[in-house]
Amino acid sequence: MPKKWKTLQTKQIFGNSVFGLREDTVVSPKTNNKHPVWVMNAPTWVNIIPITKEQKVVMVKQYRFGSKEISLEIPGGMVDKEEDPKIGAIREMKEETGYESNEIYSIGKVSPNPALMSNYTFSFVALNVKKNSEQQLDGMEDIEVLEINIDEIPKLIKSEEIDHSLVISAFYFLDRFRK
Amino acid sequence: MPKKWKTLQTKQIFGNSVFGLREDTVVSPKTNNKHPVWVMNAPTWVNIIPITKEQKVVMVKQYRFGSKEISLEIPGGMVDKEEDPKIGAIREMKEETGYESNEIYSIGKVSPNPALMSNYTFSFVALNVKKNSEQQLDGMEDIEVLEINIDEIPKLIKSEEIDHSLVISAFYFLDRFRK
Repeated sequence: MPKKWKTLQTKQIFGNSVFGLREDTVVSPKTNNKHPVWVMNAPTWVNIIPITKEQKVVMVKQYRFGSKEISLEIPGGMVDKEEDPKIGAIREMKEETGYESNEIYSIGKVSPNPALMSNYTFSFVALNVKKNSEQQLDGMEDIEVLEINIDEIPKLIKSEEIDHSLVISAFYFLDRFRK
Repeated sequence: MPKKWKTLQTKQIFGNSVFGLREDTVVSPKTNNKHPVWVMNAPTWVNIIPITKEQKVVMVKQYRFGSKEISLEIPGGMVDKEEDPKIGAIREMKEETGYESNEIYSIGKVSPNPALMSNYTFSFVALNVKKNSEQQLDGMEDIEVLEINIDEIPKLIKSEEIDHSLVISAFYFLDRFRK
């Protein structure tokens, strides 16, 4: 049974505890050898699947700087400092799409990458959402909002039009939630 | 409809093109404003769901430096330079568990995080796997191998014992593959 490793030292290489890269010096409990390892610091992330009364999923399309592609996703983002994940998810949904609902359920929590990242992503579903306002985007954001039939989602994942692992994890949780 | 952004400049902040952090200067097609953005470079990743004839999933348990937790996952890792993802997945399965199979199927491809990372993860399933050899671990690895009934997987995800988003995405693909 593998044991936890001890962290001897932490050095900030870039950024800060909210977003950055750090180098930890760790000791193997098996060999007692020291190794450098690199970890991305990031705040808690959230995403949310907004579903209308007509069983349409409200999705967002935007350019992503990592993949350099236009990406089809569900609303989501970082929680603000000391913000509750559920409140953060509701806020992101409203800002990115203008949709709201009073029926919000937690559906799951994942580690985006336990090998490399320190944070977690909380996923929610919002039922019977309605468009109550316009988007409120920040200067960098350019987001198209689409309503997509919920039955189309598996096809869009199969065709790789939806390919963000945190979005696919959320749809895994939604499958379980609806059973 | 959002457009692609132009990248004016790329500066390596840490590491190299195989693993590192870079700062790109990008231009918004909407506002023409310039912004700095940070992207993690990483090679192609793979993971693989090994399933025995008795419908047990061969899983691996190891300490992860990002989450600082022991993590229950499927075998996986980085492909070697110019290695085919399928070959890489078969290699990782053999190294981490000693299990092999001739029945390997591609089940999906995800972007681990299109906002932040440049790479993709390819997922595979290996049917009727058999243990043919011992693990071949590198100096840092300390990996426990477990056989888990395939029907237990949804429970282990619900209880957050399995919480790696790339592993959950692979199980989403497996659900579709088995239908």
